[in-house]
Amino acid sequence: MIKRMGDSTVMFSIMPRIVSYASVVGKKEADGPLKDDFDKISYDMHMGQDTWEKAESQLQKEVLSLALEKANKNAGDIDFLFAGDLLNQCISSSYGLKDFSIPYLGQYGACSTMVQGLIMASVMVSSGASHLSACITSSHFCSAERQYRFPLDYGGQRPQSSQWTVTGAGCCILSDTKSEGLPMVKTATVGRIVDLGVTDQNNMGAAMAPAAADTLLRYFRDTSSSPSDYDMIYTGDLGKIGSELLYELLSKEGVDIKGRHKDCGVMIFNDEDMDVHSGGSGCGCCSSVLCGHILKNVSSGNLKNILVMATGALLSPTSIQQSETIPSIAHLVNIVI
Amino acid sequence: MIKRMGDSTVMFSIMPRIVSYASVVGKKEADGPLKDDFDKISYDMHMGQDTWEKAESQLQKEVLSLALEKANKNAGDIDFLFAGDLLNQCISSSYGLKDFSIPYLGQYGACSTMVQGLIMASVMVSSGASHLSACITSSHFCSAERQYRFPLDYGGQRPQSSQWTVTGAGCCILSDTKSEGLPMVKTATVGRIVDLGVTDQNNMGAAMAPAAADTLLRYFRDTSSSPSDYDMIYTGDLGKIGSELLYELLSKEGVDIKGRHKDCGVMIFNDEDMDVHSGGSGCGCCSSVLCGHILKNVSSGNLKNILVMATGALLSPTSIQQSETIPSIAHLVNIVI
Repeated sequence: MIKRMGDSTVMFSIMPRIVSYASVVGKKEADGPLKDDFDKISYDMHMGQDTWEKAESQLQKEVLSLALEKANKNAGDIDFLFAGDLLNQCISSSYGLKDFSIPYLGQYGACSTMVQGLIMASVMVSSGASHLSACITSSHFCSAERQYRFPLDYGGQRPQSSQWTVTGAGCCILSDTKSEGLPMVKTATVGRIVDLGVTDQNNMGAAMAPAAADTLLRYFRDTSSSPSDYDMIYTGDLGKIGSELLYELLSKEGVDIKGRHKDCGVMIFNDEDMDVHSGGSGCGCCSSVLCGHILKNVSSGNLKNILVMATGALLSPTSIQQSETIPSIAHLVNIVI
Repeated sequence: MIKRMGDSTVMFSIMPRIVSYASVVGKKEADGPLKDDFDKISYDMHMGQDTWEKAESQLQKEVLSLALEKANKNAGDIDFLFAGDLLNQCISSSYGLKDFSIPYLGQYGACSTMVQGLIMASVMVSSGASHLSACITSSHFCSAERQYRFPLDYGGQRPQSSQWTVTGAGCCILSDTKSEGLPMVKTATVGRIVDLGVTDQNNMGAAMAPAAADTLLRYFRDTSSSPSDYDMIYTGDLGKIGSELLYELLSKEGVDIKGRHKDCGVMIFNDEDMDVHSGGSGCGCCSSVLCGHILKNVSSGNLKNILVMATGALLSPTSIQQSETIPSIAHLVNIVI
């Protein structure tokens, strides 16, 4: 059963357990500081496929297979699969996951999709609709770059505010088991679309920070809690610029998360020598860091009570060409052990 | 609370009530046989906007406003909004709905999105996570045509197997009220991705029929029911060709739905004089017919127990250019009064 808390937070009276998680990344991510946290590294950016899109589908296929293997489960054991990605019509997910024959619910929240999927899978498990549900997202630098920006061979110069799309995927399997010692989803806040009028698609952090602030403030209000109640607050891919803007927006409301905040986009690369500018981005950024680094630290007991909030910019190349502003969203989950 | 039935069907022990529904369509749809069922007709294909994409966003805005008005509710009363569309990165939904500030969960199931949203909203309401949730989808002939096929001015000839994207939108508001006499969602089956190798993007009916058969057969098995238990079985946009293929696939399993089946894509246009070939399609096809014609007939008591199954082709122009096959999906709900 699920209960409402305040305006837009839900509490899972029966807390879904994260019984398995897995991550797969590309070679650039393996050069970063989190290398040892990922389950699998693909040094071939094509992942043995003949297009970038199929390479990204392959990431999803591999990460689901790994998560199933770790849980000692088969595809047939999973009741519902929530997945999504950045490609037009979310084809990395549909083509990557079709052979598993799992009842499938496509999600689209841009780079916030991992937490959106986690919320939906938690709702299914906690409500009694499912014993086991999974969520997956991915991104691939090459498929994203050519769809959103320029042909890869063009080699355009990237502004300092831009972010680097992570090549990676993450998968969580949630269960209604009562086993102790597993990470659990306790509460969740669904984001609203926030648009403060940013139009620079090379500064996604600026576009997404207001949505992150909106969700986080609503969460603290709904749950009557404050930053010091949590071991760490992770954001998805605000990057360096977006994180600074989030601090600024929160400080206006008297909230300070600086000492206990990390951004997956900042964590995954070493900016000094990796030329990623403001940090990593893409659906695969939050999902690979969550299912690599973060959940490992929860499982080991290093972190006992955390917030994970993934942010997404809901633009498209078409909307940018039409001079539209960039609406954004942020979804949040509280994970405890 | 929600219970599982068989492999992939869920039963809502607390049945969500559809307290309000609304539909908006374009001028061609208003020339069809269902004209009087729609709440609003826009004879201006631009809906007062300067791009087709913004016109489609306008459809979503109007249909949500209408549904809220009919329910005598404000946007602030809605806990969760599930929406999606066919445009890249689902921009009709994100741009159309951002000003309502409702916690938002973007869905992507191509033309199956309306029923996917209905299932997700039902789960939220039945589980206690929400008092009121809404779902919306839309499509627009002009925004879809130029994204998926040709520039509008090109005037290419359409093969007889092709379908015509409906300009329209539909919205349902679901509630945990116990009021009598309202349409209720009783059970739902989430579709699996099915791909029998069809590659012709001008024959979506053929690509989607196997997914429709898969979901319908699983539903009948999970619920131990048969076609004669229902007043009518509606499909989303299989069109004439897809419907015939569905009959053929079902007959191999000894199931006959012919006498009690209608397809929204066939119902919405008069093919004889409207040049739509195999019928209507698009997310707005099932949603406008459901929220126009079908639910009116349920509310009036003409139909007491129906199945609504929307089908979606999970391709993209990129996947077609890369000679991929077309994976499809079909989601189903049982609506009773």
